[in-house]
Amino acid sequence: MIKAGIIGGAGYTGLELLRLLLGHPRVEISVVTSRRHRGRKVSEVNPHLFPFSGELEYEDVDAAEVTDRSDVVFLAVPHGSAMNYVPGLLARGSGRGRGGVKVIDLSADYRLKRAEYERVYGLRHKDRQSEEREAVYGLTELHPEVAAAGVDLVANPGCYPTGAILAVAPLVKEGLVRQVVFDAKSGISGAGAEPSEKSHFPNLAENIVPYQVTAHRHVAEMRQELGAGELGAGGVKVSFTPHILPSIRGILTTAHIFLNARERGRTQAEIEEVYKRFYEDKKFVRLTRGVPSLSSVRGTNFCDIWFEIEEGEKGETERVVVISAIDNLVKGGSGQAVQNMNLIFRLDEAEGLWSPGLVP
Amino acid sequence: MIKAGIIGGAGYTGLELLRLLLGHPRVEISVVTSRRHRGRKVSEVNPHLFPFSGELEYEDVDAAEVTDRSDVVFLAVPHGSAMNYVPGLLARGSGRGRGGVKVIDLSADYRLKRAEYERVYGLRHKDRQSEEREAVYGLTELHPEVAAAGVDLVANPGCYPTGAILAVAPLVKEGLVRQVVFDAKSGISGAGAEPSEKSHFPNLAENIVPYQVTAHRHVAEMRQELGAGELGAGGVKVSFTPHILPSIRGILTTAHIFLNARERGRTQAEIEEVYKRFYEDKKFVRLTRGVPSLSSVRGTNFCDIWFEIEEGEKGETERVVVISAIDNLVKGGSGQAVQNMNLIFRLDEAEGLWSPGLVP
Amino acid sequence: MIKAGIIGGAGYTGLELLRLLLGHPRVEISVVTSRRHRGRKVSEVNPHLFPFSGELEYEDVDAAEVTDRSDVVFLAVPHGSAMNYVPGLLARGSGRGRGGVKVIDLSADYRLKRAEYERVYGLRHKDRQSEEREAVYGLTELHPEVAAAGVDLVANPGCYPTGAILAVAPLVKEGLVRQVVFDAKSGISGAGAEPSEKSHFPNLAENIVPYQVTAHRHVAEMRQELGAGELGAGGVKVSFTPHILPSIRGILTTAHIFLNARERGRTQAEIEEVYKRFYEDKKFVRLTRGVPSLSSVRGTNFCDIWFEIEEGEKGETERVVVISAIDNLVKGGSGQAVQNMNLIFRLDEAEGLWSPGLVP
Amino acid sequence: MIKAGIIGGAGYTGLELLRLLLGHPRVEISVVTSRRHRGRKVSEVNPHLFPFSGELEYEDVDAAEVTDRSDVVFLAVPHGSAMNYVPGLLARGSGRGRGGVKVIDLSADYRLKRAEYERVYGLRHKDRQSEEREAVYGLTELHPEVAAAGVDLVANPGCYPTGAILAVAPLVKEGLVRQVVFDAKSGISGAGAEPSEKSHFPNLAENIVPYQVTAHRHVAEMRQELGAGELGAGGVKVSFTPHILPSIRGILTTAHIFLNARERGRTQAEIEEVYKRFYEDKKFVRLTRGVPSLSSVRGTNFCDIWFEIEEGEKGETERVVVISAIDNLVKGGSGQAVQNMNLIFRLDEAEGLWSPGLVP
Repeated sequence: MIKAGIIGGAGYTGLELLRLLLGHPRVEISVVTSRRHRGRKVSEVNPHLFPFSGELEYEDVDAAEVTDRSDVVFLAVPHGSAMNYVPGLLARGSGRGRGGVKVIDLSADYRLKRAEYERVYGLRHKDRQSEEREAVYGLTELHPEVAAAGVDLVANPGCYPTGAILAVAPLVKEGLVRQVVFDAKSGISGAGAEPSEKSHFPNLAENIVPYQVTAHRHVAEMRQELGAGELGAGGVKVSFTPHILPSIRGILTTAHIFLNARERGRTQAEIEEVYKRFYEDKKFVRLTRGVPSLSSVRGTNFCDIWFEIEEGEKGETERVVVISAIDNLVKGGSGQAVQNMNLIFRLDEAEGLWSPGLVP
Repeated sequence: MIKAGIIGGAGYTGLELLRLLLGHPRVEISVVTSRRHRGRKVSEVNPHLFPFSGELEYEDVDAAEVTDRSDVVFLAVPHGSAMNYVPGLLARGSGRGRGGVKVIDLSADYRLKRAEYERVYGLRHKDRQSEEREAVYGLTELHPEVAAAGVDLVANPGCYPTGAILAVAPLVKEGLVRQVVFDAKSGISGAGAEPSEKSHFPNLAENIVPYQVTAHRHVAEMRQELGAGELGAGGVKVSFTPHILPSIRGILTTAHIFLNARERGRTQAEIEEVYKRFYEDKKFVRLTRGVPSLSSVRGTNFCDIWFEIEEGEKGETERVVVISAIDNLVKGGSGQAVQNMNLIFRLDEAEGLWSPGLVP
Repeated sequence: MIKAGIIGGAGYTGLELLRLLLGHPRVEISVVTSRRHRGRKVSEVNPHLFPFSGELEYEDVDAAEVTDRSDVVFLAVPHGSAMNYVPGLLARGSGRGRGGVKVIDLSADYRLKRAEYERVYGLRHKDRQSEEREAVYGLTELHPEVAAAGVDLVANPGCYPTGAILAVAPLVKEGLVRQVVFDAKSGISGAGAEPSEKSHFPNLAENIVPYQVTAHRHVAEMRQELGAGELGAGGVKVSFTPHILPSIRGILTTAHIFLNARERGRTQAEIEEVYKRFYEDKKFVRLTRGVPSLSSVRGTNFCDIWFEIEEGEKGETERVVVISAIDNLVKGGSGQAVQNMNLIFRLDEAEGLWSPGLVP
Repeated sequence: MIKAGIIGGAGYTGLELLRLLLGHPRVEISVVTSRRHRGRKVSEVNPHLFPFSGELEYEDVDAAEVTDRSDVVFLAVPHGSAMNYVPGLLARGSGRGRGGVKVIDLSADYRLKRAEYERVYGLRHKDRQSEEREAVYGLTELHPEVAAAGVDLVANPGCYPTGAILAVAPLVKEGLVRQVVFDAKSGISGAGAEPSEKSHFPNLAENIVPYQVTAHRHVAEMRQELGAGELGAGGVKVSFTPHILPSIRGILTTAHIFLNARERGRTQAEIEEVYKRFYEDKKFVRLTRGVPSLSSVRGTNFCDIWFEIEEGEKGETERVVVISAIDNLVKGGSGQAVQNMNLIFRLDEAEGLWSPGLVP
């Protein structure tokens, strides 16, 4: 059994890790921390986990102890906090006999180049070796190298970037795309377990709330992944505007794509072929026949993708609208983290994650 | 024009008073207080009131000044706070030439007998003349004396009691009822404008939350109004359990009524007749043909009522299920307060309140 | 592997059976019928089941063929329809070598005594041996005899009766209860997959809809189970009023319980003890510390139960309010059906059903 | 009093006309038609209109009679149907002494040039003089000529075009815009009163449903209004994708605007100035300080607008995100129709429409 430690087990990300890992046949949870709930049983704080979490209690222990008791550590803490743990976890982890501890960071701290991180998040990165650690950006469909030997740090992607990047990566990699406008709609669970003006029911019900409409930090991840490197052509112009839905879970991303001038002759069939090829052996990406639905992915690690072409006056491909649907807490967070763990430990990537959506 | 002052104009009750009074043809708002927003324009804090509230600003002035500037003062503050204002408002108000100021208290402070109040709310009533002031319980359909000369203090009813009492008063007054179980379902706006665990969207959506299932304070008002005095027969056993709905506005009350043994021969037609007679000239009570709907009363001062009889094995009336629907912020709060004001100032009771529900 | 056939696989009950059985480690689905979708792949009609349902297609075959291909048949058809299948299924099933086929009927057709059934549902029972078949009422917590040898027909309980009966059975069996008023609130999925006035979003959102407030058919099951036989004391007066919530899944039942006069000295601790003893070894009933939540049982086979006592003036137990929460499609339908199947086939009753609720 | 007739008074558009016109101080409803409800009282079919609609009954009379009894006729029928009424209404109306009848068509039949209409709606326009009638496109903020003498036919705009065009018209008219992508989110009431797969609660709740993602017909109105004529610069590239929200009312439109290359030096203040000037004397357009909210416009005729600039790397204006919020049934439908009527009859354009949004 893989011994998994969770740092920050009381937020929605931590809770979802608990839900998934408690059902994972190859994992046992070695430790879960929460300052606020220290000493309390996990199932007492979270009755839905009774009796699954058994005698497991929240503890308030330091990173060193978490490392000593774990094969893999999930960091479910806010950005700016994870960077305080990582150096210690990796240093201590590597010193012991049975090989290093693996760290999967669900925060933003290791997703971007250092300079970009400091610009976007407006704070100094305290881990001065943040780049040298060569964290893998854990969008496994684009970064299979997470399974390579020697990887010990995964930067688990943000929820919005997961839905957005998967929606357009095949076309971008193929060099077809000139510009993409992501208009994303997320359930409120993405804003966390703490009550706020945003999550106040009368403010959200019967409404939809745009926020950070030009300046959401997640756009940096999208640009990094779509604009360069393996994906290719570069020069893709990426815009992003998020909205909060009157729903609990799910992100539906509407990608308005404009092709490069020379590629506007591409047909429906050709574009379909691009997607099929790209996601051929990817278990958690489903190309659907109709518009994706948040209910189809509810509680699951799937990303459902579908597209439609708008023809211009001369029959050219004027715009491609791609829609993707994910559960923000699973594929957009804790599920993807488990998927990364599976790959690192050479398990089937779907282990503990393989179930249909809760429909209706 | 009637000069109306509002003490506590930033909560949902205050906001709803503003919405209604700004549209009232015989009222001008003389002052509205808020410590938090002092000095800010009402329409800046609440964009939906632009441009209706014009140059009106939140002020942080004392009760004396509010009195001097007003003909009527609405207290939209929490229980335990209103009692600090009332003595001063009435004393100062009565001293001036043009007759006393009228006070409409939307809190619970003057709804109950003092001893009962202190027991139920668990605090000492600081206004030692609270009973001598002879506040009228402002459920106008049962207390037309609010329009009598000399009334200067109205205890505006609680939201739950409004829906519950109106649902069963005709049968209780007629002496038919032995026992009633109120099972009420309220929109979350009743819990106020402040974010909380209860109002946190993921906690409420796709759920319904019972709370204070045997001990909600509002039951005291129901018992006081249904158990004695004008209403009659006494000895009615009243139970009450509230729930929070995943909705913004509205209270639907399901009253499960069991008749006195000797009254179980009452027919559908007889009971209908009792309701019709009781509410004959009441503008804001509508007896509906089918199940009442929260949308039909949305944004309005109506209380819609409907009932169905369950026959026992011998054809006797085993149970009467009465359903009432109100908008908790209007008939269950600020609208009823305006209705009381209208009656006190000898206006048509519907002035400023006469509009159909927002359907759909 | 147990070969399971599903008759009526396109409604919500059928879909939920598919979701659960496709994940059940000891079951393979041998056949699933739908006239409307005959010849179409299950995963094409229901994209959320891709790729779990593999090549499985909807078929339009007769009961005989379903029997021949199955060890157990789930009837997910409306009441009045199931009775047409059962005689044939059982007759043919018993004739073959490998032992009879087991039938689990999710409709109402075999839940009540024949006379009562015909009165309540207003139609003649076409299976003239309906009583002689000795269908077990499949509320397994009260009817462990479903696991006895020779049982070949299970009448799977209605959704409302499941939540209601489990909430009060311990007290009723102990002879404490004089009267209970069930006020139930259900998600709209209970009304089925077909669009209707009731399920029309603008009619339900921001609302709660009482219906059949004195005459819902499910009350007959509650009375049958609570009023006699094993449970005991008899003479319990049962009232029931259902409401539709603006939610997809879940039934929250509020049981207002009044004890027999001689039992009103019972304390909180004693009543708690009664519940603990009754549900001691029942895996799917959880006694919670706080108010149950529909999210805690979402997608699961659990029934969460909690209660609070209202004291009368002399400290006696005036009323007991019991709250239960289930997922109407799982414990209130298809999950309970699978639980019955597990017991009949001597599997662990939790096989294929053991997962925590989808929170948040 | 203006005598107003409504053809098609049972759908959501008709109902909203009833709600607004019954409260309009200068209007009496002369006739309202519905084949389905003929002979039934309006308040019996729609209990929320009791007692406002008094004795008013649905009738099934022909256009001639409607004309004879009305000064203005609202057509609240589907596209393809309105064109059957208009010629007769205008012909008969003009023949009588007291001047012609005015016709306000809420369908799409007179919004587009004939050829474009026939292409977009895929049907032949049966009114062969559809263009000669010179219907005014009743987006009054852009078409004040609706108040000019001689106008007798108004093509009331579609709900999506209203929110979209108002959001960007100032910038387009100023010649700043090269391209705009409208991503719109609408409450389900826009899909009508008839239950459907789309409006089925379990399909919509906890979801958001994109539809006609590249080919919604309303884009033709947007292009017609934004691409030419008064508005100016021409050559604006317009894309549009609508989504259905799990909400009843409201359309929030997110307009992603890309400026012409030479205009990318425009500052926040300059763009704000453009909006202020354009909407200076427009009562129903509010430029807000923060993100617009559907609740602020709920039940009202307002269009709230706000924008934010995304700067490129060199500080240039890379993208302007404009958000507009309307109530789809009021400003996006029946309210705008009443606004048009007010202007035609030389009333204050806000008569009967001047109220704050239902917040919360």
